[in-house]
Parts: sequence; C-alpha cells; structure tokens
Amino acid sequence: MSRLFKLSKTCLKTRARAGTLTTLHGSVPTPVFLPVGSQGTVKTLTPDDLKSLGVGMILANTYHLYLRPGVETMGKLGGLHKFMAWEGPILTDSGGFQVFSLGHLRRVSDEGALFRSHIDGSEHFLTPELAIEVQEQLGADIIMVLDECPPYGDDVESIRKAMERSHLWAERCKRKYKGRKQALFGIVHGGTFAELRRQSADFITSLDFQGYAIGGLSLGEPKELMHDMLDETVALLPADKPRYLMGVGSPEDLVECVARGVDMFDSALPTRLGRNGAVFTRHRRYNIGNARFKTKKGPIDPECDCYTCRTFSAAYLHHLFKAQELLAYRLATIHNVRFIMRLMEQIRLSILDGTFFSFKKDFIQSYQPTDADIRAEQKVKWLDARQGKHPQNEVVY
Amino acid sequence: MSRLFKLSKTCLKTRARAGTLTTLHGSVPTPVFLPVGSQGTVKTLTPDDLKSLGVGMILANTYHLYLRPGVETMGKLGGLHKFMAWEGPILTDSGGFQVFSLGHLRRVSDEGALFRSHIDGSEHFLTPELAIEVQEQLGADIIMVLDECPPYGDDVESIRKAMERSHLWAERCKRKYKGRKQALFGIVHGGTFAELRRQSADFITSLDFQGYAIGGLSLGEPKELMHDMLDETVALLPADKPRYLMGVGSPEDLVECVARGVDMFDSALPTRLGRNGAVFTRHRRYNIGNARFKTKKGPIDPECDCYTCRTFSAAYLHHLFKAQELLAYRLATIHNVRFIMRLMEQIRLSILDGTFFSFKKDFIQSYQPTDADIRAEQKVKWLDARQGKHPQNEVVY
Repeated sequence: MSRLFKLSKTCLKTRARAGTLTTLHGSVPTPVFLPVGSQGTVKTLTPDDLKSLGVGMILANTYHLYLRPGVETMGKLGGLHKFMAWEGPILTDSGGFQVFSLGHLRRVSDEGALFRSHIDGSEHFLTPELAIEVQEQLGADIIMVLDECPPYGDDVESIRKAMERSHLWAERCKRKYKGRKQALFGIVHGGTFAELRRQSADFITSLDFQGYAIGGLSLGEPKELMHDMLDETVALLPADKPRYLMGVGSPEDLVECVARGVDMFDSALPTRLGRNGAVFTRHRRYNIGNARFKTKKGPIDPECDCYTCRTFSAAYLHHLFKAQELLAYRLATIHNVRFIMRLMEQIRLSILDGTFFSFKKDFIQSYQPTDADIRAEQKVKWLDARQGKHPQNEVVY
Repeated sequence: MSRLFKLSKTCLKTRARAGTLTTLHGSVPTPVFLPVGSQGTVKTLTPDDLKSLGVGMILANTYHLYLRPGVETMGKLGGLHKFMAWEGPILTDSGGFQVFSLGHLRRVSDEGALFRSHIDGSEHFLTPELAIEVQEQLGADIIMVLDECPPYGDDVESIRKAMERSHLWAERCKRKYKGRKQALFGIVHGGTFAELRRQSADFITSLDFQGYAIGGLSLGEPKELMHDMLDETVALLPADKPRYLMGVGSPEDLVECVARGVDMFDSALPTRLGRNGAVFTRHRRYNIGNARFKTKKGPIDPECDCYTCRTFSAAYLHHLFKAQELLAYRLATIHNVRFIMRLMEQIRLSILDGTFFSFKKDFIQSYQPTDADIRAEQKVKWLDARQGKHPQNEVVY
C-alpha cells in the first residue's frame, strides 16, 4: 500500500507536527481528532453531519461490532464503511480495552482473553490473531494490535507483566496481519514508569509498524505524569510514522499533547459530554442545564460556526435538555464535535505558519476548566470505560 | 388579517378538496399533515430537517409549553417561532386534550379545569380565556378554542354535557380572542352520536370561526363509526373554511378522511411509531427490529426518496435499533415523516388532476395494515394520550 503518512512541518519550539494521513478512503490532515462511533455510528450524527462538521476520520470499536452485528453479518453487508455509509477513513481498535475495562473479563493468559458478552452473556476468547482477523473483516483503514490494558495505579511489576504480554501479542498480530488494504499500528505501554515506556518503545518500534499508538495513558493519572510519559515515549518513536494517543479528547489535552508530538487522537469525551449537556466554549465548558441559560438569547458560543450556534439560542438548548428531548443530544453533539474540529484546524494552521507556540500559550492561558469540569471529565471517562455494560444509559451517557 | 383559506378544487366523486392555507408565516397547500412538536421540537428533527422533508406546518402543544419553558420565558425569547427557529406556520392546540387525558385533572366546572403539572405537581387552572391568552403569547398562526374531551365510550348524556360545556367555552374563547395575527378555530364535538354532531356543528359554525376542527374522534372507536361521524359533521361545515381532524395520522386514515372532506390533520403517530421502530411502506408497516431485516441490504422502502432510504440499508437501521442508538430514532422519524409528506403530496396532486377517486381505491386496496399494526397503533395512541405523564419514556415512546 502507498505511503500512509507524510510529514509537512515540525514546530521549532515544540514537538508539534503537521502532516497528512493517506488511506484507501482518502486523506486527512494531521494533527487529527477521531470522534468515536462505537457501534458503527457517532452517536446522534449521520455521515452527512460528520462531513459538514469537518470530521475526516472516525474510530469504531471492534469489541462492539464483533458482538453486534457480528463479523459474518458485517461481511454480508459489504464491510463497515458500506454498513454505516461512511466513505472516509476509519480506525478500529483491537477490542482489548473494552474487554479489560468492562468488568466482564473472565481469564487472561498469554494465549488471550476470555470474556463474557455484555449483550447476551455468551463467552468469547479474544486472541491477537482473532483481533486482527476481525479488524480485517470489518475493513477499517487503520487497525490496532491487541494489548493488555491494566488500570492506572497498578504496581510496577503488574504493569511490566502486562507490557510484556502486550509485546508478545504485538508480535503475533504482526505475523497474522496480511497487510493488504490496511495499516497496522503497534502500541507502546509501560504505564507511568519511564523505564518501562523506554523499553516498550524500543521493542514495539523494532517490529516496524506503520504507526505507533501510546496506550495506557489518560486513565486517571495526573496530567503532568501523562505529559512526562508522552515526552519519554515520543522521543523514541520514528519521525516518519504517525503517533496516536488513545483516549484523549479534551481541548486543553489536545493542545498540550500536540505540542508533545502526537498526530492522532480519539475520545468519546466531546460527544459524551455533549449528551450530558456539557458544551465547550473558548474559555471553559458550561453545563447547559444551568439556570443561567434559561433565558439566554444568544447562542451557546458566539464564536462558533456550527449549525446549533447559528440557529438556536442557549435558552432553547437549555429547554431541550430540561425536557429530555432527543434533539438536545444531537444539537450539543454537533456543537462539541465542531468545536474540537475547529480547534484541530487552528492547531494545524498555526503549526504550518510557525505560530503554534504562541497559539498554545494563548489557548492554555485563556482556557480555564473549572474543578467541576475536571470532575465531569473523570466521570465521563469512567462511564466511557464501562460503556458496554450499561447500554440503556448509552442514550444519555 | 388576509384570507386564511383558498379552495382550489373539489373532487367530483368524493368530498376531497385541494386548497391553500395562508398565514403570516407563509402558505401551505392542503390537504396538509402537521407533525407534532409537543415541546417546541418535532422529536429528533431540526427545522432544516422539517423543511427538507417537505413539512409545511407543524403543531405545538400549549399544555407542554405553558408548563415549560412557560409563557413568560417564551415571551422574553421572542415567541415560539423564534424559540424553535421554525419560520413556517404553527398551529397550537388549547391544552384541553392534555389536561383531560393526562390523568392529572383535579376538577372541572363550567369555569375551567383545575389540573396538576406532570412536571412539578404545581396546580393550574385552565380557563377558556387563559387558553387564548397563552396561545396568543406563544404566537402560533392558528390557535384553538378550549374544549372538554371525554373519552370514547361515555354515555350520550355525558357526551352531551361535555359538548355543551365546550360550546360555552368556545363562545368565551371567541370573546377573549383579539384576532390580530392569528386565526381561531372552533371545535365540533358530540362523540359518536350523529344527532349531537349535528347540534354541535350548527352551534359552532354559528359563532363564525376561521376554521373548524372535528374533535373527539380517533379515540378508539371503530373506524366505520369515525367515518360516519365525519360524514355527518363535514356536511354541515361551510365550504369556504378549512376543516381540521385532530389526532389522525395513519396512512389509511389520511386517505379515507381526505375523501370525507378534511383539509388538515395532526398526529404524533408517524414520529412515535418511528421511534418505536415501526416504519411505513407503501403496503404496510414493518417493525425494523424484526429478524428479517438483520441482513437486508436494500433500504427500508425501495420507493422512498428520504435520506434514510437513500443512504442506509434496512440492516443498518435494524442494528441501530437493536443497539438502542440515538440515530435509530432520528432515521426512522425521517423516513416516516417523509412517507406521510409524500402521501399528502400524491393525494393533493390526484385531487387537482381529477384522479383522487382511483388513487384512493388503489391505495386502500394495496395498503394492508396487519392486526399487529393496528394493535401497535392503538398502543401508540394510548401512549400519546399519556405522553406528559412519563417524560422518561418520551425518549423512545
């Protein structure tokens, strides 16, 4: 396959880079943020919506799609792109994160992970080989190796063991992978231990993947620690391959992590926060259910160009949330996704014209999430990890 | 105000008519179907969606909007059109139907109806004067008199008493009504008793409203009885005023009732059925959750021109419903509303070109709702009547 990644420019004062990812389903400029479409839909949005919001690439969850509708059905229907009518690039994860975080894990060994379906309780055995096979059948443009995902807070020996197992699995994924139409990414682990991060980066890059993910971060550790681990890891990754930080999607994190050399991000945070009534603005997040919005005539965010802000008052959105109207979740999602897409566009432009360093400084100075914002984010992350477990709650959460 | 209704053509073999309703917010061709936007939103749809589906006019519920956000807030925000960003005509009901059907009615007298809010339990006293005042403040283009709505099955004396009270209230509404920017419709009652229907039609038309609604039908009575009552009533209504049958929205009912001389309809049925996974096709309704759709590659309805049918397989919609994805409710709503809008367009064209009689015959012959369809419709109607009571269920039902 043709070259996946082309680097256009690197910031002189930070590690930020601008480039282009090219797949069989088109090119996307980087740094890029991938909204999450776990079950073959970015919740509340159509493919047309995604395009008009400026979304170039999305993530879908192998765990969810493997269980429902299943790979056989997906095969009959012509693969994931056709199934969800999304013509742009798709990245699928390996399913590992969900298996380890849903609380349905039964047993894990070097061979693979035995888990129960959150839908019907059926038992499944996920191996590195199966993860690759399923992802090849789904037909995403970028696929991921299976990895073991221990929680933040485990001791160094547990983290080392999980890392070593992930290395073993990465090798097996690489062997199984056919490499016809898809790019395969390795994942660097090592938790919050710099020495393990270095070992993992050395090992994973030695397998020569087409891109490198940084896994096991953004799991509740302090942000400074996440930044340090990123610095340790990115320094050891080859400059000509894309770098993908999994599970990061708050505005301030995106800016900070681009500065540390990351090219790709995914997170359910913007869409999930939206469905909870938390909307991004240039300065902080607001909860639209707050009484201050009851009679606010202007849009949520006067600087925003999204359909929601161009069309409706904050008061209307407040009303829709109070009345639990389905349109509420869609309008807030549209706003939050557009906010993040515009932020990524601004980040990229500033890298290209050499002003990223001052853009970052201004942004971080004026963007002040409150403590409540941070707590809401943690809550949403926790729900994220459990998302397969409570499908009912998925309507809102 | 300028002339509300212009009659263009009447069918020679039935009572079907084609005309135009003209309001300060534009004109709509009749016969017309009004989707229901109870709380200031047609569930799951934006104003842009409504326009692209061919919706000309919508209904909003005074009961819901009076309680939330309330008329004071609505006034501050510039009225209902501005609030919901809908530039086309709006009709509001009087709130009476909800007060009588939600089970929160506390006491009713000639003076008015005392009820409890389904939201916070607060007590409110709805009088004919208040119903007009609230509707004038909301700013809809067509507003309705307050009426008492007894259930189907009450004896003739109860129905007569309710009718007489509705007549009294109609007079008081007429007196209160300022008539500046809005048209006021009277409502003919009398349940399923032909003699009462005739009395009511005589009385209500003597008050000279700008249009006439037929109330108290489609409440569970046999369809033949509904048709008979329509025949009795419509025969006594003036030809130059629009006729509005409240609460009717199944494809077969629309065709049958247009043939009996009705110009306007509203119902939550198409949108509510959609959110329950019941989708219209030219021949019957289907439940998209049925296993037969699991791998169906084609659209729900190959004859349909809606976004859902142009873009997605029936299998994808099946998957979204199984996975309880929010997009499911939106896509099914888009399909059902477009189906009804197209049906109304076909009805109107056939009236204009003199072929309505054969159109109706063909339609009724080939459209065969199953018993399950009819039961589902009854269930949805029941939920409809109770909608204020279970706001949680509103997400789906």
